[in-house]
Amino acid sequence: MSGELVGDTVLVKDQAEASQIYNKGFYGYPQSGGGIELDLLEAIYLVETDRLVVERQGSAVALIELIQAASHHNEGFEILYIVYRDLRQRGYVVKSDAGEFDFRVFPRGGTPSNSPTKYYILAISERAECVMRDLFEEAERSESTRKELLLAVVDEEGDLTYYRASTGAPQGMPLPKPKSEVEAILLEDRAMVMDEAKGAELYAEGFFGKKIGRTLQLSLIETAYLMEHGNITIHHAASGKRMTLGAFKKRAIQIQPDFELRLRAYDDLREKGLVVKTGFKYGSHFRVYDGSPDGHHSKYLVHAVHWDYRTIWPEVSRAVRLAHGVKKDILFARVTRKQVDYLRLRRVRP
Amino acid sequence: MSGELVGDTVLVKDQAEASQIYNKGFYGYPQSGGGIELDLLEAIYLVETDRLVVERQGSAVALIELIQAASHHNEGFEILYIVYRDLRQRGYVVKSDAGEFDFRVFPRGGTPSNSPTKYYILAISERAECVMRDLFEEAERSESTRKELLLAVVDEEGDLTYYRASTGAPQGMPLPKPKSEVEAILLEDRAMVMDEAKGAELYAEGFFGKKIGRTLQLSLIETAYLMEHGNITIHHAASGKRMTLGAFKKRAIQIQPDFELRLRAYDDLREKGLVVKTGFKYGSHFRVYDGSPDGHHSKYLVHAVHWDYRTIWPEVSRAVRLAHGVKKDILFARVTRKQVDYLRLRRVRP
Repeated sequence: MSGELVGDTVLVKDQAEASQIYNKGFYGYPQSGGGIELDLLEAIYLVETDRLVVERQGSAVALIELIQAASHHNEGFEILYIVYRDLRQRGYVVKSDAGEFDFRVFPRGGTPSNSPTKYYILAISERAECVMRDLFEEAERSESTRKELLLAVVDEEGDLTYYRASTGAPQGMPLPKPKSEVEAILLEDRAMVMDEAKGAELYAEGFFGKKIGRTLQLSLIETAYLMEHGNITIHHAASGKRMTLGAFKKRAIQIQPDFELRLRAYDDLREKGLVVKTGFKYGSHFRVYDGSPDGHHSKYLVHAVHWDYRTIWPEVSRAVRLAHGVKKDILFARVTRKQVDYLRLRRVRP
Repeated sequence: MSGELVGDTVLVKDQAEASQIYNKGFYGYPQSGGGIELDLLEAIYLVETDRLVVERQGSAVALIELIQAASHHNEGFEILYIVYRDLRQRGYVVKSDAGEFDFRVFPRGGTPSNSPTKYYILAISERAECVMRDLFEEAERSESTRKELLLAVVDEEGDLTYYRASTGAPQGMPLPKPKSEVEAILLEDRAMVMDEAKGAELYAEGFFGKKIGRTLQLSLIETAYLMEHGNITIHHAASGKRMTLGAFKKRAIQIQPDFELRLRAYDDLREKGLVVKTGFKYGSHFRVYDGSPDGHHSKYLVHAVHWDYRTIWPEVSRAVRLAHGVKKDILFARVTRKQVDYLRLRRVRP
């Protein structure tokens, strides 16, 4: 088979050859007159796999020249090509997307003529910035047309990791509101309920705190939640004076500058019937249980982020990898003025 | 048993009681006259476990008052106490350290009178800053007297994670210097060796690059290393012009600002006979093999850091947890002007 390099496309004019290329893998875009037009990704892939020879003005164009041309026309070409190539090698029909995404992929065995798109693909360099807001938008856009969004992240050695990005909040069972009224003292960054019986009662009502010896120890965030719901009165450790919620929050923000952000996510998760504990050991904000944490594993790791959170891809990679390793899902909880939204990232092999 | 609260210590004057407390767990510090002086951590622990009553001017002092007194005398008291308590509950004899560390711990069954210290302990709040330089120093200081350094990190819920910190560089088998001389083109952030045979040869000589189709693709860092050793000539993709090492590094630094830092660590690891690949999937700079990477698992994850690297503990926690989950060791490679040092952090249960 042979095609002619014209700008950033390759034209296969011979009708028989064109239809063979198109029908075996759905490469190219049919033209009036029976030929097809291949984009450079398609042409390079076909050349690399010995199914096409590209010419320009009668003489053969080497693979390296095609790559140079593609790289000239498109700065992110090498990332796109690594992803394109990988998906093709996995047996998928892959087409460049005219819209927001890089590629559209059809279900295994499916083609543009008999199936709707299954996946939208974003080809991402690990060096690119990860803008959480964009991922939310792109996941929502995919879901609005019932497609799955896959993020194909290419590392510096050309290795690929696929992440499925999806929205949707976790749901637990309704938890009864706690009824206890307890007293506690604030020591630096934790509150202690000294009355053993009261502490046990509070724990039983919603798995708040942790028993340390005879005392129940509450984290700052649990304390704020319980203060907001009128279940606890806090006293300064040294003076014994009572502390207002405002003063408590001010203190908490000094210790943990993103305290309000975390508290918003904590409130939302508890509202959804989930039991929320610190995710410190997993390097995320929360580990979340669907029910009692005693003797059970947590189901989610949740990281609370501002609506305009940006990070580097190796961070995201690490968070997902870690969650995967401990058989949990990682959720990014985006806290906006009105609500908390969730984005789930899961490593997949398409 | 009873003791008298005096400032921030508790004195047990009765000789028989004092020697019983001292001999059963080595609490306190013997005084002239046969009594012992307990520090507040010890006193609180003994009160909490019903082995001591503390009085002041004839009337009993409640546990909460002792905690308030301790918290008044020592801002970091609650962190120290959580660690002290945990180690005692694990059956260790624990003494406050007069020097750089928080505690000295004796081997299980050992006591101050029959054993040297086994562990030095640093009690750390997860909210504290992690200053890598200090960890290096403290690990070296422990090792100079043949002690193990344990970092006891307390999370916001009072849960403890212990990390053993130790120094020492990883060692591989000597690798022969590569002899190839190949040509490659630079595409954005990776170089491609188009000649299939030359690429295969280069790979065989030191596991450089990754085969993608017919080409061998090299990362920026591999490319710089091979340029430094005269094994590769790099051409611009679009113009075909040859690139100097200086121009290449300048370009690499634009793409990856910490390129020189990483390259220094990469060079050092290769010098030590190790095969170094990107650690992107694990959220660290490198994964390191002791021998061929084909069909083998990497042994270490290595993160290159500046000599004055500071981070937050949840980051460190995440890195160690992740490495642990994939059965690798995490090493922090501290790059100084003269050399590269390594700090290994491993989660342990003392």
